[in-house]
Amino acid sequence: MNAEIISVGTELLLGETINTDAAAVAQLLSEYGINVYWQTVVGDNRVRLEHAVNVAKERSDIIITTGGLGPTCDDLTKEVVAEAFGKKLVLNEAEEARLRGLYAERHTYMTENHLQQVYLPEGCTVLVNDWGTAPACAFEAEGCLVIMLPGPPLECGPLLEHRVRPLLDARSDSLILSHNVRMFGIGEGTMEYYLRDLMNEMTNPTLAPYAKEGECLVRITAKAATKDEAEALIAPWVEKISRQFAPFAYSVDAENIEDYAMRRLIASGKTAAVAESITGGLVGDQMTNTPGASSAFLGGMIVYTDEIKNRLLGVDADVLREHGAVSREVAVQMAERVREKFGADIGISLTGLAGPGDDGVHTVGTVFVALAVEGATYVRRLYKDKWGRERIKHAAANHAFDMLRRYLDDLPVEIDEENQ
Amino acid sequence: MNAEIISVGTELLLGETINTDAAAVAQLLSEYGINVYWQTVVGDNRVRLEHAVNVAKERSDIIITTGGLGPTCDDLTKEVVAEAFGKKLVLNEAEEARLRGLYAERHTYMTENHLQQVYLPEGCTVLVNDWGTAPACAFEAEGCLVIMLPGPPLECGPLLEHRVRPLLDARSDSLILSHNVRMFGIGEGTMEYYLRDLMNEMTNPTLAPYAKEGECLVRITAKAATKDEAEALIAPWVEKISRQFAPFAYSVDAENIEDYAMRRLIASGKTAAVAESITGGLVGDQMTNTPGASSAFLGGMIVYTDEIKNRLLGVDADVLREHGAVSREVAVQMAERVREKFGADIGISLTGLAGPGDDGVHTVGTVFVALAVEGATYVRRLYKDKWGRERIKHAAANHAFDMLRRYLDDLPVEIDEENQ
Repeated sequence: MNAEIISVGTELLLGETINTDAAAVAQLLSEYGINVYWQTVVGDNRVRLEHAVNVAKERSDIIITTGGLGPTCDDLTKEVVAEAFGKKLVLNEAEEARLRGLYAERHTYMTENHLQQVYLPEGCTVLVNDWGTAPACAFEAEGCLVIMLPGPPLECGPLLEHRVRPLLDARSDSLILSHNVRMFGIGEGTMEYYLRDLMNEMTNPTLAPYAKEGECLVRITAKAATKDEAEALIAPWVEKISRQFAPFAYSVDAENIEDYAMRRLIASGKTAAVAESITGGLVGDQMTNTPGASSAFLGGMIVYTDEIKNRLLGVDADVLREHGAVSREVAVQMAERVREKFGADIGISLTGLAGPGDDGVHTVGTVFVALAVEGATYVRRLYKDKWGRERIKHAAANHAFDMLRRYLDDLPVEIDEENQ
Repeated sequence: MNAEIISVGTELLLGETINTDAAAVAQLLSEYGINVYWQTVVGDNRVRLEHAVNVAKERSDIIITTGGLGPTCDDLTKEVVAEAFGKKLVLNEAEEARLRGLYAERHTYMTENHLQQVYLPEGCTVLVNDWGTAPACAFEAEGCLVIMLPGPPLECGPLLEHRVRPLLDARSDSLILSHNVRMFGIGEGTMEYYLRDLMNEMTNPTLAPYAKEGECLVRITAKAATKDEAEALIAPWVEKISRQFAPFAYSVDAENIEDYAMRRLIASGKTAAVAESITGGLVGDQMTNTPGASSAFLGGMIVYTDEIKNRLLGVDADVLREHGAVSREVAVQMAERVREKFGADIGISLTGLAGPGDDGVHTVGTVFVALAVEGATYVRRLYKDKWGRERIKHAAANHAFDMLRRYLDDLPVEIDEENQ
């Protein structure tokens, strides 16, 4: 069984919008072992959309479209797709009532163009959209399962999970299962070098390397009739690779290093506080994205000026004067002071220069990250040349989380500066 | 002149990676008035990549590929594309020297597989990659301009700007220019309703509505021989629409509301500090993404627990007890106290419940945002039901920035709760 994703929207062709929907659809399909060989993007254009649908009909068992279901006059998907399969659009009265109800609830006047959304292909299954106004729908015709989803990712995502998943459950024979061994502090090319022979030899499971922003991972993928069989194929490889790449390999299937570190922190029963200069609140923000954060994260101080570092956080004025705000000494004091002030087990600090201008002393990209605990304070010095402002901030935050997880996992917290 | 984007990578088909490169390529092309009618995604698969290249050759004047230039054995793009145009890959000695130099500089051992990256199509123009190891390249053959770029967005992005842009400069006859009137606090459907007749009538410039996360915009696009002519076509419409949708229309061409608000703050000469509970540092993080932030942003406190709100920020224990941390009263005190403590002109605070668990009193999604200045404190109450944790945080932050920009632009800061 194979599927094709057709994303509709001139905003995608103009690069105005990033195609996150295609990734979300693809992820779900791959869970079901449904191969996706093609993704196509077309604009809000009748002729090219029709062509894409006709090509997809010939080579794919499932077609999933995203976008073009809304109330505006360039929303053409339902019309064109229905026509390609010889179907008419008819007013769906249940959906009309739902739509009118939504507007009444919001005390908002519903302009008439919104009704366009509730004309659906005759005989289709309505996929009720509890996250927006435009209903999604599915139908089978000419040996093809066709599913049309709205474009806004915050509607497309939940519809995939709660409406499309049940449709696929009934249709799957085999499944593809993957686990990711995630690594921090090693490059993709180097990792792959040590795995190349295995990658070429193995067929089930397979190994594939990926680079993510500042991290990399090995994906181990197995195809089997049941989930248990697939897990049994994967398990020995997860263990082998995790061992081979320790201490870089920090987790299996964590979403990213910050989420992994926060879950470890929450599980440890310890508390943390942050003192952020260069990152401006990013580390605190990331810490509070993990559900349950409030049991482990007490808060922090964003100390963006020298005066505030001294007066509110208590960094010595002498130290600031002598070493400058971007220094090992200031990082150490920031981590220790915030730990004391908040009464936390762990204090984390970040100070550096994100640019674009420099301070006359340090080069843009110089960052110190410190982690203070009872009786010890660890520091890493990073140097990220030629990087943009946000990227430097994210790299600094990643290192803070790597220090945190290494501390909690009883691994060396500081690392060789050469390998940063 | 029209172009086609072919994105290569099984990680894209599996939904592992979101295709940001395609958007970046498309944006650049649309600046040059080069129409993109198709984007295709294929995996690291020789047969399908070859098919995609052959289809593209027939219908497009320019082919831009992203991905598959790296050192790993599933990086096939150069090989397949060169073959499709009857070209050989040859070792590029300058690039080999550069690659070896990079590794020497990093004191890292270069495994031999990395050399694969410096085999390039004979006679091509090398697009030197100063942001990574794999060089990009371009060649012309069979009436087609072919450009191959690496997949990592932090390499692809700068290569587009510094290497591909000069190539396109030489080839453009007409250009497409767009300006975006950005709005906050009005829905796309409603906005479009008031513009529909115009949208249908106009041909040059054209109007198109877009929804962005929590915001929307009207894009006004003109095609002309010169930039000045295009600007002259667009200008009256920017003015007309900005006036029609005031005070929702906050800016022309701002990247987003936080960047706009920060630039306004920096220009005003005023200073700000933040007290963040629900957002955990997100507002401070966003404030410090705008270059020059350090002249206006002093810092803030992340006060994630009641004890810290009271002891370190100075919110009255009585008020916390009586009204709870998620209340108008606590938001007001947080904004006023952080303003005093930091000695800022403007204090901003956010308190609310992001979930997943509730506090027994408030529903998940309830947020209070306050802005305190000399002599006045403004509050908005938001209620974002059924939203996820990160989305609630971002919505709250957006409102903080909308309050800030409205204050600086002398507009009403509080808004009718019905319209949030």
